[in-house]
Amino acid sequence: MSRRFVDQLRDGDNLEDVYLVTDKQLRANRNGAPYLLLELRDRTGGIPARLWNSGDHVARGFDPGDFLFATGKVQLFQGSLQVILNTIERVESQKVELTDFLPHTEQSVPKLMERLRAYLLRLGNPHLRALAECFLMDEVFVRNFATCPAGVKLHHAYVGGLLEHTVSMMDAAEKLLPLYAGVDRDLVLMGVFLHDAGKTRELTYTRAFGYSDEGQLIGHIPIAVEMLTEIATKVPDLTGEPLPRELMLRLRHMILSHHGELNYGSPKVPMTPEAMLVHLIDLLDTRMHMVLRELKEDKNNPSAWTPYNANFGRRIYKGGASGDLYGEGGGGYD
Amino acid sequence: MSRRFVDQLRDGDNLEDVYLVTDKQLRANRNGAPYLLLELRDRTGGIPARLWNSGDHVARGFDPGDFLFATGKVQLFQGSLQVILNTIERVESQKVELTDFLPHTEQSVPKLMERLRAYLLRLGNPHLRALAECFLMDEVFVRNFATCPAGVKLHHAYVGGLLEHTVSMMDAAEKLLPLYAGVDRDLVLMGVFLHDAGKTRELTYTRAFGYSDEGQLIGHIPIAVEMLTEIATKVPDLTGEPLPRELMLRLRHMILSHHGELNYGSPKVPMTPEAMLVHLIDLLDTRMHMVLRELKEDKNNPSAWTPYNANFGRRIYKGGASGDLYGEGGGGYD
Amino acid sequence: MSRRFVDQLRDGDNLEDVYLVTDKQLRANRNGAPYLLLELRDRTGGIPARLWNSGDHVARGFDPGDFLFATGKVQLFQGSLQVILNTIERVESQKVELTDFLPHTEQSVPKLMERLRAYLLRLGNPHLRALAECFLMDEVFVRNFATCPAGVKLHHAYVGGLLEHTVSMMDAAEKLLPLYAGVDRDLVLMGVFLHDAGKTRELTYTRAFGYSDEGQLIGHIPIAVEMLTEIATKVPDLTGEPLPRELMLRLRHMILSHHGELNYGSPKVPMTPEAMLVHLIDLLDTRMHMVLRELKEDKNNPSAWTPYNANFGRRIYKGGASGDLYGEGGGGYD
Amino acid sequence: MSRRFVDQLRDGDNLEDVYLVTDKQLRANRNGAPYLLLELRDRTGGIPARLWNSGDHVARGFDPGDFLFATGKVQLFQGSLQVILNTIERVESQKVELTDFLPHTEQSVPKLMERLRAYLLRLGNPHLRALAECFLMDEVFVRNFATCPAGVKLHHAYVGGLLEHTVSMMDAAEKLLPLYAGVDRDLVLMGVFLHDAGKTRELTYTRAFGYSDEGQLIGHIPIAVEMLTEIATKVPDLTGEPLPRELMLRLRHMILSHHGELNYGSPKVPMTPEAMLVHLIDLLDTRMHMVLRELKEDKNNPSAWTPYNANFGRRIYKGGASGDLYGEGGGGYD
Amino acid sequence: MSRRFVDQLRDGDNLEDVYLVTDKQLRANRNGAPYLLLELRDRTGGIPARLWNSGDHVARGFDPGDFLFATGKVQLFQGSLQVILNTIERVESQKVELTDFLPHTEQSVPKLMERLRAYLLRLGNPHLRALAECFLMDEVFVRNFATCPAGVKLHHAYVGGLLEHTVSMMDAAEKLLPLYAGVDRDLVLMGVFLHDAGKTRELTYTRAFGYSDEGQLIGHIPIAVEMLTEIATKVPDLTGEPLPRELMLRLRHMILSHHGELNYGSPKVPMTPEAMLVHLIDLLDTRMHMVLRELKEDKNNPSAWTPYNANFGRRIYKGGASGDLYGEGGGGYD
Amino acid sequence: MSRRFVDQLRDGDNLEDVYLVTDKQLRANRNGAPYLLLELRDRTGGIPARLWNSGDHVARGFDPGDFLFATGKVQLFQGSLQVILNTIERVESQKVELTDFLPHTEQSVPKLMERLRAYLLRLGNPHLRALAECFLMDEVFVRNFATCPAGVKLHHAYVGGLLEHTVSMMDAAEKLLPLYAGVDRDLVLMGVFLHDAGKTRELTYTRAFGYSDEGQLIGHIPIAVEMLTEIATKVPDLTGEPLPRELMLRLRHMILSHHGELNYGSPKVPMTPEAMLVHLIDLLDTRMHMVLRELKEDKNNPSAWTPYNANFGRRIYKGGASGDLYGEGGGGYD
Repeated sequence: MSRRFVDQLRDGDNLEDVYLVTDKQLRANRNGAPYLLLELRDRTGGIPARLWNSGDHVARGFDPGDFLFATGKVQLFQGSLQVILNTIERVESQKVELTDFLPHTEQSVPKLMERLRAYLLRLGNPHLRALAECFLMDEVFVRNFATCPAGVKLHHAYVGGLLEHTVSMMDAAEKLLPLYAGVDRDLVLMGVFLHDAGKTRELTYTRAFGYSDEGQLIGHIPIAVEMLTEIATKVPDLTGEPLPRELMLRLRHMILSHHGELNYGSPKVPMTPEAMLVHLIDLLDTRMHMVLRELKEDKNNPSAWTPYNANFGRRIYKGGASGDLYGEGGGGYD
Repeated sequence: MSRRFVDQLRDGDNLEDVYLVTDKQLRANRNGAPYLLLELRDRTGGIPARLWNSGDHVARGFDPGDFLFATGKVQLFQGSLQVILNTIERVESQKVELTDFLPHTEQSVPKLMERLRAYLLRLGNPHLRALAECFLMDEVFVRNFATCPAGVKLHHAYVGGLLEHTVSMMDAAEKLLPLYAGVDRDLVLMGVFLHDAGKTRELTYTRAFGYSDEGQLIGHIPIAVEMLTEIATKVPDLTGEPLPRELMLRLRHMILSHHGELNYGSPKVPMTPEAMLVHLIDLLDTRMHMVLRELKEDKNNPSAWTPYNANFGRRIYKGGASGDLYGEGGGGYD
Repeated sequence: MSRRFVDQLRDGDNLEDVYLVTDKQLRANRNGAPYLLLELRDRTGGIPARLWNSGDHVARGFDPGDFLFATGKVQLFQGSLQVILNTIERVESQKVELTDFLPHTEQSVPKLMERLRAYLLRLGNPHLRALAECFLMDEVFVRNFATCPAGVKLHHAYVGGLLEHTVSMMDAAEKLLPLYAGVDRDLVLMGVFLHDAGKTRELTYTRAFGYSDEGQLIGHIPIAVEMLTEIATKVPDLTGEPLPRELMLRLRHMILSHHGELNYGSPKVPMTPEAMLVHLIDLLDTRMHMVLRELKEDKNNPSAWTPYNANFGRRIYKGGASGDLYGEGGGGYD
Repeated sequence: MSRRFVDQLRDGDNLEDVYLVTDKQLRANRNGAPYLLLELRDRTGGIPARLWNSGDHVARGFDPGDFLFATGKVQLFQGSLQVILNTIERVESQKVELTDFLPHTEQSVPKLMERLRAYLLRLGNPHLRALAECFLMDEVFVRNFATCPAGVKLHHAYVGGLLEHTVSMMDAAEKLLPLYAGVDRDLVLMGVFLHDAGKTRELTYTRAFGYSDEGQLIGHIPIAVEMLTEIATKVPDLTGEPLPRELMLRLRHMILSHHGELNYGSPKVPMTPEAMLVHLIDLLDTRMHMVLRELKEDKNNPSAWTPYNANFGRRIYKGGASGDLYGEGGGGYD
Repeated sequence: MSRRFVDQLRDGDNLEDVYLVTDKQLRANRNGAPYLLLELRDRTGGIPARLWNSGDHVARGFDPGDFLFATGKVQLFQGSLQVILNTIERVESQKVELTDFLPHTEQSVPKLMERLRAYLLRLGNPHLRALAECFLMDEVFVRNFATCPAGVKLHHAYVGGLLEHTVSMMDAAEKLLPLYAGVDRDLVLMGVFLHDAGKTRELTYTRAFGYSDEGQLIGHIPIAVEMLTEIATKVPDLTGEPLPRELMLRLRHMILSHHGELNYGSPKVPMTPEAMLVHLIDLLDTRMHMVLRELKEDKNNPSAWTPYNANFGRRIYKGGASGDLYGEGGGGYD
Repeated sequence: MSRRFVDQLRDGDNLEDVYLVTDKQLRANRNGAPYLLLELRDRTGGIPARLWNSGDHVARGFDPGDFLFATGKVQLFQGSLQVILNTIERVESQKVELTDFLPHTEQSVPKLMERLRAYLLRLGNPHLRALAECFLMDEVFVRNFATCPAGVKLHHAYVGGLLEHTVSMMDAAEKLLPLYAGVDRDLVLMGVFLHDAGKTRELTYTRAFGYSDEGQLIGHIPIAVEMLTEIATKVPDLTGEPLPRELMLRLRHMILSHHGELNYGSPKVPMTPEAMLVHLIDLLDTRMHMVLRELKEDKNNPSAWTPYNANFGRRIYKGGASGDLYGEGGGGYD
């Protein structure tokens, strides 16, 4: 039987499925009897749920972030839906289909991965190609890279987001490189690959998206440099010689400077053509993704504007009917 | 006889050619006798020149910005070259080959112009195509657009620079548009065409590059909006209907927001996908141009770094021999 | 029968009047029965209202921003007043007295308009006087200028606010001009008239105050320049000659620079004495209005300070009894 | 015999007058013989002067800031005038007419002083009037207040500048107060009087303009508060009662907040109507003075723009002939 | 009988004690009957309380900030505790043990005071020692200095906090001074003593912590300078000579510059070694106090991070078990 | 024979010693004859030097940064000393006593090194002690750490400056740690040791001070993290177990956050007590060093103020005679 997602629940439905718990409170009702107030979520949304007559012993059995198999009934209360629970039971996260609980890219992860490999394994510079191979031979890294979001909130905040963002930037780089002679193609593609690779350790993305301790204390930029220097030691096994010092210098610089300015967390500004291009393509892909996502998430809302997005500092204009640009719908400008 | 450029002058040469005067001072020598100290320039550089025993009546005959036919002799003085003048004579600027005196694009202006026309006349939206035609029918505008630099100092600061920058951005837009579905191609290309069109009135570029009074008081962003609204009134002659209001709104917004932030002189931040893309491609083309120009202008200097550029806030790393990236030249990283 | 305003409603009153709907939600009560929760407003304030047993068909009949003729009863609920509705009926906005629903200036709009005309029609410079006449002959413009607020929230946020602010600035200019010889009086007065004229198109003010699409995408500064260039084309009909180029340059510059700094949305800083004075008087009138309004709106509150105003970044000190400044009320400073 | 000012010196003139020394260097000529290189100044400008064959013993006899009676001959050298000195002799500054050496206001200091007194002695609030009297009874203060510039470089940088600026602000306040009901006139006038009074101790202005040690370490804002609290203790001698605490609080606040923002050196932002008005009038008078001075000092320069002023961050537009605003001189705008 | 603190109340308890009222609202229940909703607080926390059937006459009898003797019963309501009141009676604040209601330092105030005196009375410079004695002879000042918090929210926000912060800074100064030869020890210790002394008048701390009118309009920095100049006039009574001018200059400068930068409210940056050291030790003590307090207040929370503190702009990392730093608990880094 | 330093050269001296060349220009004299203009330096200063009749072949024989054995004669020219060279000969830098050419700490480097070792080898945490040992066993690192300056210009800009700054911070940490319970002493000391260790690779300091390519592209913060991770792999050889993960996390965080704010180049702000303390002690030691150095370098200048230091944004007040603080020298404050 296929899963019943939160956005499919209706008043009167019976509930019988696994959900992610994202909030847990022990409260008392008007008679002083304790009950549990939970929030249950999956990738489509969240719903409050109450388990009456339920004390400390039940509450201690699980934590926010755990998965629960829950049975109960959906009802309307004060204009919103809630669940009155009958039973709850903790489920190991291994037994759960993660993609049911976290938003994920609409593209095919295996195809994106295939495209990433194709870019990397066709690099002309043998040192960089060998470096890429060393990364791709690391199975844990590859699995993380394929799963990790590109951000918790701002952009590409879904499973596979990092991979999608990276491949999209490689596509943009491939298109733009012919316009700017004097920029090393291989370095740029490698810079794109590495620039956010540290997010695989900065973020947590096996349950809810968040930051790891290392992510908060170190950040993805220094983490990526560390990952590079570690993997770089394996290159001589493939090529018989160490990565040229000059190449490592430029790779590390591209990672460190890709946020473009010190106050955005880059300890150095871009000072090579390749670092500059990686920074600019990152900015372009990120900003365009944000604008287009605002429009997409708001497309059923009849307003001419998306809601104000505080992180982005603006609303996006959706405008009137598409015919407007061709003037069929109304008055002209004169 | 072909022109003798400033960078070809040598100690002992006879001088006999037209030069642009960019500085004029009346001084007195140790005996109190007055002489003229001038700076003569062409597109390859400048040289100081002295005309002994020369008083007010000579000095009043011309101003900085004028062209002079000058004869005299080149000599070394305190380690630098200077000219001791025999005669000077003012020349009308119409008789002068402007391109000898101002730096110009290395690309062919007619070919760039052809590519611009091709982009514009193939626009799918008939209103935008008609608008483009109206601009292209304005001969003064076209001549200015083909001549104007994109800046006085920062980037594309040469005759034809605006055109080169515009076509380069159109190329980039054409390449990137397929990656970002939901962005209107015709609007973006028109936005690229218009975004800096106001520079044709903001700048002066018939002698030395500078700012017009209107340029300083109004700026190219409001000027471009004015140019658009004026030309837009001619569109109905071609299409039989006014430019749709919605289209004008989005065109004006693209121009106004293309600097991306208020403190860079845009009174609005980009709030449509097309305005965002025009802004980002402008940033990308400008920054890449600056980095690559720094490298190019400094290529004969053996230092690993370009000189510090205060406008850019950085030096650019040139690095060692090109072989370094392949490790043939030296030690590796381990 | 005169209107019963929201701030006159008391527990137990019968309600029977027209109100502006500013919020509409369809909710379900504890038994799952749907009801409508509305907010009704007029210029004196707002009150929540419920219509029991009311479904989608009723809710679809009107939108926030519409006017409703409502009957029902006022009651206390959880310490606040609310309305239990019996009937609601949509009313066309043409049939409504707008001034009952929007706050308006305490001054007489016709008298303010008279004073504005007097300033403008007595300008000494015939070109500027003719320009002013052209604006005043445009009936739509005049009606909008007389109605428009000067802002949505920050200052003069009421019907007639723009006119009041403009005349107040003209009064200030008239007083200050004799102190600063070398400043052109006519230019300053015209600059004051035009500086915020674009707000007539930037804002919406027929129902609740807000921003038009053009207002958000273009902003009142470029709109005002556009209005000026359009109306300027009519001047030759009155004077027989075009507006002098120099005059237009200075007028456009005054509008563009009146916010004083780029990061406040002016693409140019003031660079003429007149532009500087218009900017400074605008700042002065706006800031003084804000301080005095904070005091006025808070005059019944016994605290020595107005509430914190986040837009203004401060509270205003009201102090003790007025006698304090004369020391009759208490201890001195020694 | 009237003084020969620096701007009246010509090649070949004999020099025989007192000058202010502003630079002193002991140098050696090509033969190693020492000579003194000085700069001599008066209020009209400066000129370099050399005293040949002059060693340490002469150099030690005076310092920059001293006055010298000098004899010698003016000559042209490398296009500029210089003085070859015969004799120099130190002169006590008491014997010197200070106004010959420092720029001073073009207005009459006694008349300005009279107007200041008139404003202050007609204040309605008896406490404030008494406070003003106490200041005016302090002869040292009055002499300093009449002499002190309002700044070293930025604005009103001349003897009498503080007084001129203060009276100009009082004029502006007098004109504007009727427009803003609810602002206490007496407090505003007193605030204007006190706001920069600390400059009498912050600056030095008996020789060249500069900052005192106290001025650099404490600044005119805290100094003015100190002056106020000290003089305030004398008020009870006149009125029989101490200055009301509330009045002192508002006076101190006006002084402390008059720069408007923390990063301009005001430890508090304006939080009373009177403090806000004093701040705004100060800004207005200062900025208008700066714009008009730029124009005035540059009036003989044929350029349409004043030179770039780095402190002000801009050039000021002077425009074409005055007729331009009336269009007699040229083409129109269409 | 010892006081029952808010954090000791449990469901079903009888309440019979004095509390501080910090909120008062008159509401109506569902039947329209009025009741009072209060917040009662002591230094351990707050609890809501309701007095049924209680009208205006009762509500007018006291204000937030007053103390009430209250009787009633504690009960659970919607998962939180509240009080149902039987009687309330206003109590004069003099009869109340202030330390029961405001948080206070964990250190002994008399011992801290003793240490402060010891530092001050052993100063080597007789003028500074005499100045300190004059401060310590002022009983009101001493009582305030011993009671005042160092801030309302940010750091040392408890009774005795100013004293604790001052003595902690003196300890740090004493330790650091030997490392930086050329810094005057006596000046630094006096600077530490005075730097925040103005908080005794800036803040209110007899009921809830807050700002006085003088505190908001003037601020503790100018107040401290005023206190210093006033007390300084008493020094000659002890020493027979006025405080040296140079000493006063440096003392005032230390107070004025101790925030380090203009935009933090210091009208001058530190320009003497002593002012620099006082500023740096203040920063150090304040920041370390904030970090350590975040950790302490959150020590029972099992998360690895303290909650986000918006004033501080960060969370603090608490990490795993303390054993982790010694690696007994888990995996290593390799 | 002991070296004759630049600051000991006098008019007429014979020159015969090794100097560092810091500038080289080939010029032509009035007759067109080429000559070399050099700048010769040692740690006490620089002097211009000319080698007449010297062409390209000589100039190509050495570069700025090389050492030359030079003979010639010192003479006065235009008030300054210069050298007329007879012979120059390139000298290998290995044969040169580096300390003659670069400024160095006034403290004993071996004693500072001894104190550093003592701090590190007495650390209580065995992992950190082992880590320190691994660093100290690396001879190249130790030699660099003992030689490197702490900066090129701002502070401790001399040979041994990094070591001096590090030990000074350890002294300060040792003194302050007892005041702030809850801060791990061993972590702080290790953080101090590591925080600027990357400067050993960021800077060049074998000839003139400057930045390495790696220094400019990567910066000392990421370099130090890299050095730490590399050396950390050697710890298990000493302790038999890897460095605990938690320890490494906190060490890396201390290095990364020690500049305190993102716009100063730290990609993270301090979020542990130890990171906060290391940052604050670094700030304190650096700022105090800068203030005291300004005073020291200017001690022979009779002005009351040091010259304006643009990097520091201020001048430092030196004040009158030291007696002033005791009032023996003059008037008091009353």
